[in-house]
Amino acid sequence: MGNRPLDTLNDVLDMPVLVRLKGSREFRGTLQGYDIHMNLTLTDAEELVDGEAVRSIGTVIVRGDNVVYVSP
Amino acid sequence: MGNRPLDTLNDVLDMPVLVRLKGSREFRGTLQGYDIHMNLTLTDAEELVDGEAVRSIGTVIVRGDNVVYVSP
Amino acid sequence: MGNRPLDTLNDVLDMPVLVRLKGSREFRGTLQGYDIHMNLTLTDAEELVDGEAVRSIGTVIVRGDNVVYVSP
Amino acid sequence: MGNRPLDTLNDVLDMPVLVRLKGSREFRGTLQGYDIHMNLTLTDAEELVDGEAVRSIGTVIVRGDNVVYVSP
Amino acid sequence: MGNRPLDTLNDVLDMPVLVRLKGSREFRGTLQGYDIHMNLTLTDAEELVDGEAVRSIGTVIVRGDNVVYVSP
Amino acid sequence: MGNRPLDTLNDVLDMPVLVRLKGSREFRGTLQGYDIHMNLTLTDAEELVDGEAVRSIGTVIVRGDNVVYVSP
Amino acid sequence: MGNRPLDTLNDVLDMPVLVRLKGSREFRGTLQGYDIHMNLTLTDAEELVDGEAVRSIGTVIVRGDNVVYVSP
Repeated sequence: MGNRPLDTLNDVLDMPVLVRLKGSREFRGTLQGYDIHMNLTLTDAEELVDGEAVRSIGTVIVRGDNVVYVSP
Repeated sequence: MGNRPLDTLNDVLDMPVLVRLKGSREFRGTLQGYDIHMNLTLTDAEELVDGEAVRSIGTVIVRGDNVVYVSP
Repeated sequence: MGNRPLDTLNDVLDMPVLVRLKGSREFRGTLQGYDIHMNLTLTDAEELVDGEAVRSIGTVIVRGDNVVYVSP
Repeated sequence: MGNRPLDTLNDVLDMPVLVRLKGSREFRGTLQGYDIHMNLTLTDAEELVDGEAVRSIGTVIVRGDNVVYVSP
Repeated sequence: MGNRPLDTLNDVLDMPVLVRLKGSREFRGTLQGYDIHMNLTLTDAEELVDGEAVRSIGTVIVRGDNVVYVSP
Repeated sequence: MGNRPLDTLNDVLDMPVLVRLKGSREFRGTLQGYDIHMNLTLTDAEELVDGEAVRSIGTVIVRGDNVVYVSP
Repeated sequence: MGNRPLDTLNDVLDMPVLVRLKGSREFRGTLQGYDIHMNLTLTDAEELVDGEAVRSIGTVIVRGDNVVYVSP
């Protein structure tokens, strides 16, 4: 199965990631944790619209089923 | 897996949280409890539209599959 | 996990609740029962549109996946 | 858990029920059977639009994930 | 649980059925088989739009999650 | 359960099939493999719009939850 | 079951793939890994709109439920 996707997430713990959600919401933040559902905890997160930061949200727990992709 | 998302929820029990739901609904309230589906119990909750409180709802049990994110 | 959401439901058995469904449907009624899927049985239920009762429906079994939130 | 929703369905076997589906479809018929997914078998069923019968459909097996609510 | 829905399907094997899918697609055909997901095999199937046959499709395997209802 | 749907798929391995997906996408190709989720591998596949081939795509692995039906 | 879809993915590890997502998003990149949910890790990925590259995204972890198809 190569480098399994959750292993790749593990490799980027404590690093900045971009998280694209269903709809047009994106978050940028530091990946603090994840689980097998791809629920994610980000810290120092900001919400982006069209690639621009629209607000700071601090810590955020994203429910995995909203995630389209995560990019380190 | 770092700080798993449900552990982060556990850390903010009895603290105020913002809960974003699918669609445009948001709740602000005190996190009284949660489970593995991310079902949530909030107390002293108010519903927000465009970031403004539109009504007080007291205690509310949110079904987890509606949750986009929780932010302490 | 604090007061788990299903325990909160258990605490309000036989009490009046407001149930918000996906879409714009709401029910108000007495919570007679529930299960782990958040399927709900309400009695003396009425359906609301924009917060106003539009019809009496007596007993109603709601499939859990339609539930957004339950508020006692 | 009070009167669990599936027990309530069991209590109304062989009795007339109204079944509301996602979208705007409704069926009225006699509840012949159900299972844990809330798949339903109705007999002497008719399909309703805006509360009026638009066609007779006899026996119908409804897949549970389409069900919003069942009302005896 | 009365006559469980899948038992009702079993009773109509090799008989003509109408299958309503999500969206506006319908099939009419002979029910050759099914499984617990309500995946269905129809033979001599034709696709209907607004109740009229628009094309013959022969054998078709329908994935269960598309099914709204099956009517013998 | 008659000829179960997955058995029917097994019977048409290495044969041409039409695969209808949710939305308006269709593929025509040779069925190389499948699994219990109805994930499918097609070879010599072409994508169709309104029944006409719009591009050749060679081998394609379709995730099962997109499948509406498969027709040999 | 022929060449099962996940085996086909395994055969194209470290090779370029096109990944079509629900909505109109596509990625082209090198398949580094996958799992049973069809979560995917791509490297050297670029996002396409209408078949044209619109941005480079490097490494990307795609949540499987967004995948329509993967084509080597």
